Amino acid sequence: MWGRAMRTIFRDGTVVKLIDHTRLPLETVLVECATVDAICEAIRTMRIRGAPALGVAGAYGVALAAEATAEHAADLIQSLERAAVKLRATRPTAVNLGWGVERAMQIARGAATHGAPATRVALWRLADDLAEADVAANQQLGAHGMSLIPDGARILTHCNTGSLATVDWGTALGVVRSAHRAGKQLHVFVDETRPFLQGSRLTAWELQQEGIPYTVITDNMAGSLMARGEVDLCIVGADRIAACGDVANKIGTYSVAVLAAAHNIPFFVAAPTSTIDLSIETGEGIPIEERDSAEVLAFAGVRVAPEGAAARHPAFDVTPARYVNAIVTEVGVLRPPFESALAAAVAQTAGATPAAPGARA
Amino acid sequence: MWGRAMRTIFRDGTVVKLIDHTRLPLETVLVECATVDAICEAIRTMRIRGAPALGVAGAYGVALAAEATAEHAADLIQSLERAAVKLRATRPTAVNLGWGVERAMQIARGAATHGAPATRVALWRLADDLAEADVAANQQLGAHGMSLIPDGARILTHCNTGSLATVDWGTALGVVRSAHRAGKQLHVFVDETRPFLQGSRLTAWELQQEGIPYTVITDNMAGSLMARGEVDLCIVGADRIAACGDVANKIGTYSVAVLAAAHNIPFFVAAPTSTIDLSIETGEGIPIEERDSAEVLAFAGVRVAPEGAAARHPAFDVTPARYVNAIVTEVGVLRPPFESALAAAVAQTAGATPAAPGARA
Repeated sequence: MWGRAMRTIFRDGTVVKLIDHTRLPLETVLVECATVDAICEAIRTMRIRGAPALGVAGAYGVALAAEATAEHAADLIQSLERAAVKLRATRPTAVNLGWGVERAMQIARGAATHGAPATRVALWRLADDLAEADVAANQQLGAHGMSLIPDGARILTHCNTGSLATVDWGTALGVVRSAHRAGKQLHVFVDETRPFLQGSRLTAWELQQEGIPYTVITDNMAGSLMARGEVDLCIVGADRIAACGDVANKIGTYSVAVLAAAHNIPFFVAAPTSTIDLSIETGEGIPIEERDSAEVLAFAGVRVAPEGAAARHPAFDVTPARYVNAIVTEVGVLRPPFESALAAAVAQTAGATPAAPGARA
Repeated sequence: MWGRAMRTIFRDGTVVKLIDHTRLPLETVLVECATVDAICEAIRTMRIRGAPALGVAGAYGVALAAEATAEHAADLIQSLERAAVKLRATRPTAVNLGWGVERAMQIARGAATHGAPATRVALWRLADDLAEADVAANQQLGAHGMSLIPDGARILTHCNTGSLATVDWGTALGVVRSAHRAGKQLHVFVDETRPFLQGSRLTAWELQQEGIPYTVITDNMAGSLMARGEVDLCIVGADRIAACGDVANKIGTYSVAVLAAAHNIPFFVAAPTSTIDLSIETGEGIPIEERDSAEVLAFAGVRVAPEGAAARHPAFDVTPARYVNAIVTEVGVLRPPFESALAAAVAQTAGATPAAPGARA
């Protein structure tokens, strides 16, 4: 922990608790989820968000579902399968969510014959282990990634990729945190990240707590700052990385990448290997969540467009691999060509994660 | 007029009235300015905005100042000079404001020897003439510019450049309006334009009234839409155009231009010749207004960043001429190289505007 009293998501007995991201930074409110429906709702409404955090939330969701199911093994698995479908449907783009759910389902399938109580125990343990593994992966990722951050760097980031978006520490912001802890002088330009304002609300809050100097900017200022020579590098997270290295991330990431390239500024992506989806060849295959356009036309309950206005709200975009200078993972900094590097990184971690098929139960 | 009951700015006797841009689209409120201080305050707080509208507001401001001054010619001019300084200081980037003020001061200097009453009459007439000339220039600009808009075009625009930003009709949005009136099928993607939300609040409102199909997007979606092939051209306004063709415009314009270039999408600028500043060679010489960072840290009046957060708020950026495919003016569509084209356009209009030195008083 690094200045907050609690992790983004944790469990208390058989209740999952999470910090409500929609209320920050004005208030720190805990949401308690005692059912899979409650956690689905929390994910859908973005009370919890961030690809790695969603991976852990998915596993906890399956554990919550197991608490509410029958004792009979066949019924149990059938019921968990239904819960898994619900959980996966909440947010389609971040692959970690499905990854966490699938890890849990593998555990459940292996444990179910030992009875419902044993399955529940195994599922809670798996989710707890995934949470610990996420923190460890982020810290490794940070240690690898800080080699990319020169002393004195002026860093642009988009969205929130810190301790809130993960279980703790962070991915892209974890790299920044590690570099700061290592004594490097840094300044972070924080894209406010419309429409949900993860930058001004969450990233600014985290940087302030960590004592890292930062400046909030509107998303449309990034290009101008680059043109003035005020940005040395960009680092962002990822919601899904295709086999070729194309990166799906929060809407606006693609613009940052194109602008960085136009100004010869390095553009880095930081994500745990659980974000890599080798089953999808290129970014074209990544499903992009289209959220309610009302989130674009209003903020904090205040409407900003005329009655009846039409809006679009793709929540993510895809940055082609050619714009990415490096992908930072817990196993090291990957450089182009990404196809082989990503495959090797996934192979390296496949046997090591606590959620590997057959590792438990 | 095209669907509103009134112009953005007009006078009623010796009171200047304007539609409060900060209240739209939720309510249409008129602000009455009976003094130069009142109009300065309205400009500073962006109750009225848009380079061409500010040009006319500047001239009306001098007329308001003349209403409150002594009868003696020398005192009158001295007092007007002080008012002119105040008016110019309200917004430093839009050259039209200073242009309108200077036109008025030329009239005043010529008329002052005929006494205060004659000067007042001349100043009101000048401001009224500038208002009429702005509408006429916009309509000419629209007629020229619509040749750039193919039938079926999907147009991206930034900020508000419609009837609200001018006296009536609009510049970039005036071109869109003219093309629509000519029967072309169009769709406009409206950048919401943080932090002031001129796009979602004002441009959406205008397009809705005109019956032009549109979609509001957050500024950070533009690049992704371009990558998906959903944008055919970009058209924006300008606050100041340097002699070489570099364009200062609302923050975020530069990013749109770089993204358009990266996707081979034409990028057009529409502005009356009063926006051209031949005294400034390149964009580097254009003063960029830095506004209160509180405007970035709040959204629709709701604070969105932690207490004590730092933010930047450059209100404008500069798009180098090399990103601009054409500049649409009331005398025609200018193409690169802009230096000669801009000089010729200014020369062509210098003798024709009602505010030319010595034309009145």
